[in-house]
Amino acid sequence: MSGAADFCGTSDRDALAARQLAALEAREAVVRAFVCAGSPAPARSGPLGSALIGVKDIISSADFPTRYGADTTGHHGPDAWCVSEAKRLGGVILGKTVCTEFAYPQPGPTTNPHDPARSPGGSSSGSAAAVAAGFVSFAFGTQTAGSTIRPASYCGVTGFKPTFGLLPTDGVQSLSTTLDHLGVFAQSPRDVWFLTSAMTQQAPEIVASRRPDRVLVWRVPAEIPLQDGYPDLIEALPSWLARRGIEATLSDLPFPAAELAGLQQSLCSWELARLLRVPGPMRLVPELRALLSRHAALDIAEYAAARARRQAAQAEFAALAAHYDAILLPAATGAAPLHQSTGDAVLNRLWTALHIPVFSVPMWRSGDGLPLGLQVLGALGNDRALTQVSQYLWEQRPA
Amino acid sequence: MSGAADFCGTSDRDALAARQLAALEAREAVVRAFVCAGSPAPARSGPLGSALIGVKDIISSADFPTRYGADTTGHHGPDAWCVSEAKRLGGVILGKTVCTEFAYPQPGPTTNPHDPARSPGGSSSGSAAAVAAGFVSFAFGTQTAGSTIRPASYCGVTGFKPTFGLLPTDGVQSLSTTLDHLGVFAQSPRDVWFLTSAMTQQAPEIVASRRPDRVLVWRVPAEIPLQDGYPDLIEALPSWLARRGIEATLSDLPFPAAELAGLQQSLCSWELARLLRVPGPMRLVPELRALLSRHAALDIAEYAAARARRQAAQAEFAALAAHYDAILLPAATGAAPLHQSTGDAVLNRLWTALHIPVFSVPMWRSGDGLPLGLQVLGALGNDRALTQVSQYLWEQRPA
Repeated sequence: MSGAADFCGTSDRDALAARQLAALEAREAVVRAFVCAGSPAPARSGPLGSALIGVKDIISSADFPTRYGADTTGHHGPDAWCVSEAKRLGGVILGKTVCTEFAYPQPGPTTNPHDPARSPGGSSSGSAAAVAAGFVSFAFGTQTAGSTIRPASYCGVTGFKPTFGLLPTDGVQSLSTTLDHLGVFAQSPRDVWFLTSAMTQQAPEIVASRRPDRVLVWRVPAEIPLQDGYPDLIEALPSWLARRGIEATLSDLPFPAAELAGLQQSLCSWELARLLRVPGPMRLVPELRALLSRHAALDIAEYAAARARRQAAQAEFAALAAHYDAILLPAATGAAPLHQSTGDAVLNRLWTALHIPVFSVPMWRSGDGLPLGLQVLGALGNDRALTQVSQYLWEQRPA
Repeated sequence: MSGAADFCGTSDRDALAARQLAALEAREAVVRAFVCAGSPAPARSGPLGSALIGVKDIISSADFPTRYGADTTGHHGPDAWCVSEAKRLGGVILGKTVCTEFAYPQPGPTTNPHDPARSPGGSSSGSAAAVAAGFVSFAFGTQTAGSTIRPASYCGVTGFKPTFGLLPTDGVQSLSTTLDHLGVFAQSPRDVWFLTSAMTQQAPEIVASRRPDRVLVWRVPAEIPLQDGYPDLIEALPSWLARRGIEATLSDLPFPAAELAGLQQSLCSWELARLLRVPGPMRLVPELRALLSRHAALDIAEYAAARARRQAAQAEFAALAAHYDAILLPAATGAAPLHQSTGDAVLNRLWTALHIPVFSVPMWRSGDGLPLGLQVLGALGNDRALTQVSQYLWEQRPA
């Protein structure tokens, strides 16, 4: 499946869409990527050329009900910003993709297209799986902790969490005011940028790959155990890069990642508890009601301290990132886990809190043949340059 | 009017509400603070004790249509986060307050309660005027450039732009993903915090004032001409503070404010142009359509550079703010201008871009008896501490 051509490399897009609809017909009963799909409004002609797009079910749309991954009645639209923009540009919304209930970690029905016994990750489970199974060329997800990068890694597709604020989240169910991001899934980094640039620039852009000059490879500390071959792959990565003329340093991260391990949770729990106080479908979920009562007592002084820590960490990360074209680390702690769990976001949370752009590039395979993603971090706002570096890694990938 | 008791200092809140409704009856024909008002749903009992609240007309509500200050049909709700939360806490939404058309600078019908020939400022014109005229105890506004702090200054009330993300903007018409803030108007800083803490903590809090130990007073550079007595008031402020035992330094700001003068506009024009691409009421306004075509060509590299400059400036400001309990400067360049203009946000834009908490405290009067606000800046996340310092200044105000 990793050999699938990307959208930008496909000349006959009508034939691509026909193959995607045939794949959906053949495999959706097992993959279960969609909450509802089909009978989309006919596309306007536009630069996205009728590309099929999946939309995570916490993103509002006029054509399909939004159920937040929960057993609610669902409500229709209006279209979220990303949906409206994708339709205006000629994209076809194929349907709403499964998210775990209210983007929380309990697994939903979606299975991993590489092994139905495995999790696709979450919470953007269906969006990652729909791209991996070849049902759509693009899918929108969200990331507040690791909900785009982790499922992309488990499903063997490219995932992108842009710089905070680059893509408006209007029409997306809020979880956390300073952590919520739209995410984009596609086969390749240049596909991701094709859609992202179409939505933010004057016209879609097919970026060329660019070989980085200098990268830092983070040797994840022993407190975070890596599995499924990641340790050896990371140790071998610098020499693999060096053979391509890239100066690669393998080291502990010269950045207080361990001290900041709880930062995203501190911010999220305070912010989520505030949003949960108002009526809405989110309050129906017992786990979230429990969280609300647990976190209602959090002091604003603790939140203020977390905001100050984040700001200091952003400056420290910027100073570090200025020396490298990218910082590389595993996108998850291992390959897709069995279906009881959507996996661990421990390697994703901090970068979300820092607001920097992040890619997951489908890079390797585990001994069992499951995808293993490489996480690519860049400086705030450098989304386009990071796309070019990620596209280079994607083109060179051994997987 | 500056002698009006604040909500926290009022024991008979039923009598207060009766006085407010009588003031509305007597003066609204001239002040024109409201787009629509009256017949609110009965309050639930709650900690806000039936306090009357105005809501800026770009904030969605179920009980009143939202018209964005424009001549649109208007649509009803659902309630924005702040409206839902205020109602849950026992507040009574009295109505929707005038904002300039789509929060843009063209004046709306509202007049300044201190002089009907003068502007109340904008874009949260009606919210500032409704509090100043004694129609409501609280009002919600927004600030993307200077739309809360400036009208608060012109109208002689307290205005508060919290740390970015402290108050969710769910249900507020978006203008700019990384600049939009909710704003709060009330008589005093402790009133502002009463409502803010009710919405974000477990219960509303009446904070005590706190005398600051050290403050920096910014001597605004000559490129930004100040009027209506501000230059002399700022020159005299350090000795006024010193008489109260406060160490006050008057200086040029040791911060590259001049270099950063265009930062907020760079961020806003890129972000606003992206939001305007999708269909919606905002696109009806010719001025905004023109802006869209002008800014569509802005390069993402320019936006990336602006994001990096902002991040560096945030770190620099944090280092400076750590030495002081507050940084003080005029809240506007002068008193309320004549009604043709809503005034200049030049002294507000940068602080909005930096995401820090900001108060406008009604401090002085011009020779014409018009209010002049003092702008109070604090470190990111330090909203509560800054409230206490602002409350001290409010209690000591000569106006």
